[in-house]
Amino acid sequence: LLAGIGDDCAIWQPRAGHQTILTCDWFLEDTHFRVDRHPPESIGWKCLARAVSDIAAMGGEPRCFLLSLALPQSRTKTWMDKFLSGLRHASRKLHCPAAGGDTTRDSRVLISITVVGECRHGAAVPRSGAKPGDAIFVTGRLGEAEYGFRLLGQMSSARATALADDPRLRKHLHPEPRIPIGAWLAKRRLATAMMDLSDGLSTDLPRLCNASSAGAEIHAGSLPCVQIAAKGAKHPFDPLALALHGGDDYELLFTVAQRNAKRIPSAIGGVQLTRIGEITASRKIVLLGDDGSPRPLSNQGWDPFR
Amino acid sequence: LLAGIGDDCAIWQPRAGHQTILTCDWFLEDTHFRVDRHPPESIGWKCLARAVSDIAAMGGEPRCFLLSLALPQSRTKTWMDKFLSGLRHASRKLHCPAAGGDTTRDSRVLISITVVGECRHGAAVPRSGAKPGDAIFVTGRLGEAEYGFRLLGQMSSARATALADDPRLRKHLHPEPRIPIGAWLAKRRLATAMMDLSDGLSTDLPRLCNASSAGAEIHAGSLPCVQIAAKGAKHPFDPLALALHGGDDYELLFTVAQRNAKRIPSAIGGVQLTRIGEITASRKIVLLGDDGSPRPLSNQGWDPFR
Repeated sequence: LLAGIGDDCAIWQPRAGHQTILTCDWFLEDTHFRVDRHPPESIGWKCLARAVSDIAAMGGEPRCFLLSLALPQSRTKTWMDKFLSGLRHASRKLHCPAAGGDTTRDSRVLISITVVGECRHGAAVPRSGAKPGDAIFVTGRLGEAEYGFRLLGQMSSARATALADDPRLRKHLHPEPRIPIGAWLAKRRLATAMMDLSDGLSTDLPRLCNASSAGAEIHAGSLPCVQIAAKGAKHPFDPLALALHGGDDYELLFTVAQRNAKRIPSAIGGVQLTRIGEITASRKIVLLGDDGSPRPLSNQGWDPFR
Repeated sequence: LLAGIGDDCAIWQPRAGHQTILTCDWFLEDTHFRVDRHPPESIGWKCLARAVSDIAAMGGEPRCFLLSLALPQSRTKTWMDKFLSGLRHASRKLHCPAAGGDTTRDSRVLISITVVGECRHGAAVPRSGAKPGDAIFVTGRLGEAEYGFRLLGQMSSARATALADDPRLRKHLHPEPRIPIGAWLAKRRLATAMMDLSDGLSTDLPRLCNASSAGAEIHAGSLPCVQIAAKGAKHPFDPLALALHGGDDYELLFTVAQRNAKRIPSAIGGVQLTRIGEITASRKIVLLGDDGSPRPLSNQGWDPFR
């Protein structure tokens, strides 16, 4: 980054032998977060982390970001300081400095963030490369963010803020893009297709399959679900439904040729990698129960147009 | 552009020997445009053109853009088709293809656009290089966009749409970023500082002067004002006030070392270049009247926080 905030544009020096990866993401009050419920630090962290997750999903590494921010007058002081604190925290942790942006006034908090990343020439992993027979993997546990979101919805606003460090809320409030895992896979050219899980497996897997002109079979029993500490009480949420339809996890979904599947370790950097199914030629998305019985996996994840 | 819409990110191949230039811009319903007054084609054209103008202001050339678009249900059909038609028109005319974006639903039309451009290594022209004694130039005529905006405000909405090709409205509805002029200046390293005039000369000139730790004297009589066809009727707007404070012109403001000032032609590609004053050491922004009498030039351009 050669020049940043304060001029008409930021100037940035690309690395030789690399390609530039570009992504932009909305993060809007009332659509993606609520200012009366989500701590401002979390909004700052998450707006960058979720955009960086798209870079990780290509196997790339983030280099810098641009922030378009619109704020009401009432959010310009304490709220903005905390928001910026969360954003700076993510920026440092993800090695992704601010390059510039545009700020204006609005009646709601509106955020649009663009992230610029890089990957070695030809190493980017698209959604479209999955082939029938490929093994399907995911990182981490699925449904944890949705679980945290529902717990948050049952709390008072004050308690929600106080509980920002609660491990059950961490995935919802402070998701961590899987940059090292995406880069590890891209470097070894092990992933045939990859994307991040932002809207839930049942919504995102069909996207990867459509891009690859293929279908998939998922083994329900293999899904890495939320671990619920059963303290006697029956849990109100179904871990399988959370794993299938819960959004906002920002885990990676990727496919690996059958012959390479054994080269995928069980964890990278403390984050587990789980084989959950196979790509098929059928164009259908099928969920196999514990007894092997198939049922169609219907798209029930997040869709802003539904 | 190697891969675009449909994957997690766009992939883009930077040119050897070039630097990447990045800019992002808000364009929001009720703040920057009104959907009941501005033709959707104009909104589509202008959202890209005004962001590309920042690339032109660095002396760069646009390469691709990313669009974050939020729309109400009511704008998804005819309105969006016309919006996209205007956007495509700008994209072709400005040689700036779409690389990707993010779309969501909202109660208002929200647009955030990021443009990626390039310039030869070290050729980008910042705001900060102006030196006392440098001549100050502008492209085109100042105040034309504000003039068109005020005329539009006096028209019925139906008439405004019908008059999209009215030359008096053209600058407001279809501004043309001065890419060839910016690139011409950067290539010859003639401009010591440059920016685009988006918020009005009286607001933008202090920004260039602040970045350059300098001041300026502007000759009122030299300003290229709106040419008003006097058909007998007295015109209601003051051309000098329009030129000083009118926003949205997207002309270039640039400075040239005294010894090089004579190398600046009177026009490039049919767009006039006018010398309007000099950079001074004083840190003040002064307007010199026709009789040479100085008065401070107060900042009366567009400011979303005012």
